[in-house]
Parts: sequence; C-alpha cells; structure tokens
Amino acid sequence: MALLVKKFGGSSVATPEKMRHIASRVLKERNPDDQIVIVVSAMGDTTDNLLKLASKVTDKHYARELDMLMSTGEQVSIAMMAMTFCSMGVPAQSFTGPQAGIIAEGVFGKGNIIDIKPARVFKALAAGKIAIVAGFQAITPEGEIITLGRGGSDTTAVALAGAMRADMCEIYTDVEGVYSADPRVVPNAVKMKEISNEEMLELARLGAGVMQPQSISMGSRFHVPIHVRSTFSDNEGTIIREDNFGEEKGPVCGVAEDYNVARIAAVGVENVPGTAAMIFNELDKNEIPVDMIVQSVRRINDRRGDIIFTVASSDLVEAKEVLEKLKADGRINNILYDDNCAKVSIVGLEMLSAPGVEARIFGALGRKNINIDIVSSSKNSISCLVPRPKVDEAIRSIHAEFFKNKPQQ
Amino acid sequence: MALLVKKFGGSSVATPEKMRHIASRVLKERNPDDQIVIVVSAMGDTTDNLLKLASKVTDKHYARELDMLMSTGEQVSIAMMAMTFCSMGVPAQSFTGPQAGIIAEGVFGKGNIIDIKPARVFKALAAGKIAIVAGFQAITPEGEIITLGRGGSDTTAVALAGAMRADMCEIYTDVEGVYSADPRVVPNAVKMKEISNEEMLELARLGAGVMQPQSISMGSRFHVPIHVRSTFSDNEGTIIREDNFGEEKGPVCGVAEDYNVARIAAVGVENVPGTAAMIFNELDKNEIPVDMIVQSVRRINDRRGDIIFTVASSDLVEAKEVLEKLKADGRINNILYDDNCAKVSIVGLEMLSAPGVEARIFGALGRKNINIDIVSSSKNSISCLVPRPKVDEAIRSIHAEFFKNKPQQ
Repeated sequence: MALLVKKFGGSSVATPEKMRHIASRVLKERNPDDQIVIVVSAMGDTTDNLLKLASKVTDKHYARELDMLMSTGEQVSIAMMAMTFCSMGVPAQSFTGPQAGIIAEGVFGKGNIIDIKPARVFKALAAGKIAIVAGFQAITPEGEIITLGRGGSDTTAVALAGAMRADMCEIYTDVEGVYSADPRVVPNAVKMKEISNEEMLELARLGAGVMQPQSISMGSRFHVPIHVRSTFSDNEGTIIREDNFGEEKGPVCGVAEDYNVARIAAVGVENVPGTAAMIFNELDKNEIPVDMIVQSVRRINDRRGDIIFTVASSDLVEAKEVLEKLKADGRINNILYDDNCAKVSIVGLEMLSAPGVEARIFGALGRKNINIDIVSSSKNSISCLVPRPKVDEAIRSIHAEFFKNKPQQ
Repeated sequence: MALLVKKFGGSSVATPEKMRHIASRVLKERNPDDQIVIVVSAMGDTTDNLLKLASKVTDKHYARELDMLMSTGEQVSIAMMAMTFCSMGVPAQSFTGPQAGIIAEGVFGKGNIIDIKPARVFKALAAGKIAIVAGFQAITPEGEIITLGRGGSDTTAVALAGAMRADMCEIYTDVEGVYSADPRVVPNAVKMKEISNEEMLELARLGAGVMQPQSISMGSRFHVPIHVRSTFSDNEGTIIREDNFGEEKGPVCGVAEDYNVARIAAVGVENVPGTAAMIFNELDKNEIPVDMIVQSVRRINDRRGDIIFTVASSDLVEAKEVLEKLKADGRINNILYDDNCAKVSIVGLEMLSAPGVEARIFGALGRKNINIDIVSSSKNSISCLVPRPKVDEAIRSIHAEFFKNKPQQ
C-alpha cells in the first residue's frame, strides 16, 4: 500500500475530456490498496481569464480581492474532477485548500504555507475515496483566503505529501521531466533520471520552469521524493531526491534561463553609508526580491554613485512605485528601467570549485558576440544577464559547451 | 444612521459596467453614516454556464460537488464588486457565505440557514468598509460548502439583515416591485406600494417569481421589512411588511402562475390504508415536495385506486426514480407523467371567507373554455391546474375579473 499525491496542472485539466483521461490513467496505475490524493490547478486559461475580468474593473492590484477571485479557478477544477471520478463509479471528494487544512500566512498572492492539518483528507481516504484537493490556495489563521503565488499548486502538492507522509509526490506536467536545458530551445537537451534537491532548487531559482523553488524546498524540508513526469506519456520522468549518487556527472547539471527579469539602474544615488541598504529595504518591505546587484562607485569622493540590480519583470510596476518615491524624495537622481533582458545560468554542485567553468561560459558567449551585462555566482551556479533577443543563442552555445557528447538517456 | 442590506441579482451584476453602475448608485443614495452590506448573486449566466460545464462530465447530480462548483459563481461576483468599490476610492471587503458566518444544514443544493454569525461583517462595517457578501452559499456545521437553492441570494440577504438587525433589506431586481400579476402577461397589472408578509409568502409559494418563499418567511421570522425594487430605475418598489393596513383592498391581492409544475397520475394504487402515505413518504424522504393532490377511489370495494398529484417540474426526474421503484415492486400498476401543465392561483387574506370568489375564478376560466384539472385551496389562496398553453389566457381572464377598474398606483 502506498500513499501517493499526484498533482495535475492547468493544461492537464483544461477540458472535461482531459479530466477523464487523467482519471482513467490514475485508476489504471493504481494498485488496489493505494491511497490517492490528487491536487489540481485551475482549468486551462481560467486564471488568465479571471485576471482579464478583474482588469475590466481596475488596473490596480487589490491583492485580497484578487485572491478571493483567483481561488475560484481551482475550486471549479476540484468539483469537476471529483464529479469525473464519481461518474466513473469511483467515490471521490473535493476539498478546497482551506478544507484540506492548508494554512498559510504572508502577503496576499504570495502566501507561505505554515501548517497543514489534513484530517479531513485522511478521513476521505480512510472511507475509500479519492481525495481531490485545490492547489494554489490556503486559509490564513484569520480565515482569509490566500493564494500561494506562482507554482502554488506544486507547493500545495509537495507540502501536503510531506504532511501526510506520502510515499511519493508526483508532479504531472507538460514536459517529460527535468532536462539539462529547455528542450524547446535546445533540441538535444538531456533528460535526467534523478537530480538532487539542491541542484533542482538552484535550477528552479534560476528560471528552469518545471517547478518553482518554493515547492522544491518543501520537498527537501519534508523529505518527500518528487517525481516530475508527463501527463501525456507513460514514460518515467525525473525524480528529485535529497541526494543522488547514482549518476556520473560533469561539473554542470543543467542550463536555465529566466525571462522574468528586469534590470534597474539607480543613477546618482547618495554615496553615504546605508543608502543602498535603504533602497533594498524599501523593496524588501514591499516584498519585491532583488536578484543580481552591481554597485559602481565612480570615484572615492563622488557624492553620488550608481546601483544596478535586477528584479522580476512581474514586480517591475511595484518596484517603480517604490523607487519613484525615493527619487521624488531626492535620494536618487534618476532611474532607468530595462525590461528587455534575460538571465542565463549554469548549475552544478560545487560549481565554484570546478576549474575553468567560468572561462568556458564566458568563452561560449563571447564566440557568439553576446554581451554580458551582469555576472553573479553562488555556490552552485553562475548567472549572466544578457539581452533578451540573444537568450536562445546564449543557451544553445553554453549547453553545447558543457554537454558536447552526452547521449540522451 | 441606518444599517441597510442591499441585494443585487445576477442580471444586475452581469458585467463590470453594471457593477460600476450599482456601486455608483449605492454611493449616491448613501447617507454619510449609513452602514451598507451588499449581497450579490453570480454574474449573469455564470450559474447556467457552470451547470453546462458539469453536464459535460456527467448527467448525474452529485449534489455536494455541484455545490462546490456553483458556489464559485458568487465568489467571483463578490471579489469583482469589492474591487469595483475599491477602484472608486471606497473601502470594501468581500465575504464568502462561510466567512460571513452563514451556517446552513440540510440537503446539498437546498440548504436551510440555521444560524448566522456575522462578526466579521460587523467588523468590516465598523472599520468604515462596505461589506460585500456572497449570496446563495453557506457552510454546514461540518465545514461543507452548501448552496441554498433557488432564490438563495434573497434568503441570504433577508436572513443576514435579520441577524444584523438591519433597518431594511432592499432586494434589487429586474422588475419595479410586486404586481397584481406578471406585467409581461398582464400589461395593466397593478404595482403594490405595500403587501403583507403573509400575502407575499402565499404569492411566492404559488409561483410569483419576484421572491422565493424561503426568503419571505425569513423576513417574517426576523421582523425585517423587505423593499423589492428595480435595479434600473429610482422608483420606489413594493415594501413587504408584517402587516399593511394602509390600503383599501379587494378580496384578491394578486394572481400568480407557476410553470414549474408536473402532474403525476399513479394509476392502480393498492387501495389499502397507508398506501397513499407510503407514496408521499417515499417522495418526502427524497426531499421532493408534493403540491396538489386528488385521490380518486373508484368504488368502495375496488382493490386499486388512482392518486393524482403535482410536483415541481424540476423534481420530475427524481420523482420518476422513486415512483418507478414502487411500480417495480408492484405497489402501483402504472404511472402517467404530464409536464405540460401549469398552476394559476389567486391570493388574498382570508380568501376562503370571501363570498363568491371561487365562483368568479371558475367563471373567468369557463368563459375562455379553459379546462381545470385540479383545484386546491388554502386559507389565503385558490389554485387551478390548467394546460400550460392556456396559462397566459387564464391569468388575463382571472386578473380582469378581480382588477376590473383598479388604476395603476
């Protein structure tokens, strides 16, 4: 007997026909004693359509009310999915995030799960039912509906799997697993059988779209193996585990790209101690994470310097609001925004101790005349900010450099 | 200062433009100290569209999951309505039925409100916000989402107004108020300034579409006056109060028609004591209310008799299931179903003690050669089952008989 949590994304449940397909597959693969929890996202374009609806009322971001609105998407999915199983003669019961005991706090639209009390889900399983749980949504301790931000359904699935001590959390998606690069960009990218949690987290943090970082760290925190696999084929995908010693590997496990990057140059910032901190504090207070940072102090006695940094493009409007206030207060002379850039990264355990990796990435980009705006590195990665129109070329060049002869697994 | 609960139906909130129209009107009519609670239904065709979506999965009625699905409609409305007010600079906060403390029990899809704990709504009002509450939906003591059935948003509004001791519950609708007959059928129908709760309840019970009986009895139970008025004009509508002694009235206050009627003839029912009770018990167990009943016992020693009765057309499928089982068990020889009938009723306080009323209604129908299938009467009404194609003619004829010279108010 196994307890399995299976998560299906929006494209997998886009239509009643697709839901029936999923239900058939789940039932076909189920061993008689398995207990199944299914986590679903909103059907297809529902989330976009709800956002469009909201935009007809206002272009402002009323986060609490947006969460109230968006959470209906998953609620439709769970009801439809439960009815699908019921119509096939298999008892099933749907649960909203709040009903499944998923408790989160933080800013609306970006909730963090703080606790899970899945008593009602266990009860449904014990009664022989398939439990269908709404991803992406939770309840705050005050009883407010809150959503978990991008990839929130994965986070729900992994956290629920952890809290329920599931044997495996299966993330069904529209790709076959985790690749050494986005196969749409790099046709000979290599699918991995396994990847360590640490590497996957770094890949995700740097833009590999398969899963969001929050979900992967949940997997690590709760010691749940995550199987990333395709909705549309029966092939094994990639298993994310705490450690994987099985495969012989090069220094680089994958290449990631992130288009959700905007470059901000704060020009003429008061060159006194604490000013940079002040800018980043203000952004932090507004929950806008800053990624790459370069501070250029022109000359030691300059009274003003420049700070260049990146934020997510999706945070750019809010970042502008914060920064324009500082500009109005005279703390910054001018601010330049560039939304036409992207970040390319390579990831590998102990990257920085591997000899020559930096030279090889710069060489790969240099051969294609791709200009590097900012470089940043961490223990497990090296990232370069490049012009957005050059991203695909950059990825292909870097991938070719590190995966020259590696066969498809 | 007044505490006002205002309910807007699906057609009033069908588009973002209509929502803005409503918000503007609410703000224009508000006195500075007024506290406003707005109850909304699902936008326009949302409910129908959700039902259509469910029908793509199954034609069976999984009531719990349907409630899960349907309740998303109002949740979209409240979020959109709250954003509408916020975008106009007026603080507003949305509440699902569960968040507003609306507690119900009973069968899914037909919940009955048993308690209201509006603490969070009061808190929002005290903070100077307009509270937007989802109609039609509630939570059971076990934490299940349950809907309140037809007219459920009205019920929510009236019950909430009662629990909050509101000064008035305003039901905004697509008609100007309560008329002596449906103005679409009877162009010279009379709009009433006031009507007693008791008469309105009887009119509603007999099919007057303005409000559902459950809502009206809530008004009576909680002593809340209800103002039924138009979303699309500023005219005063009709106020439903516990008593109205102001107007001089004839014996009949209104004519109602009900198309949601199906006639069932159980032919050859065992003529032993308890058999009729058995049929009606089985229907009752399945929450199928029976309305008009005629029992014909052919001869005293006949071993089998006929029972003719009516149920709501919308219950006909379920009623058939119940009755066909009894037929299969041999308790009934044959069953005939007629979904092509309708019920015409006249309503007035102390109807039965008014002389000649029955003769006048039969005369009005007889002059038009309209056959009467079943007649039933109560303290405040007389109803006739007629062929559906004849309903409009029947209503016009009866209305002309009782409202000959009454001017439009």
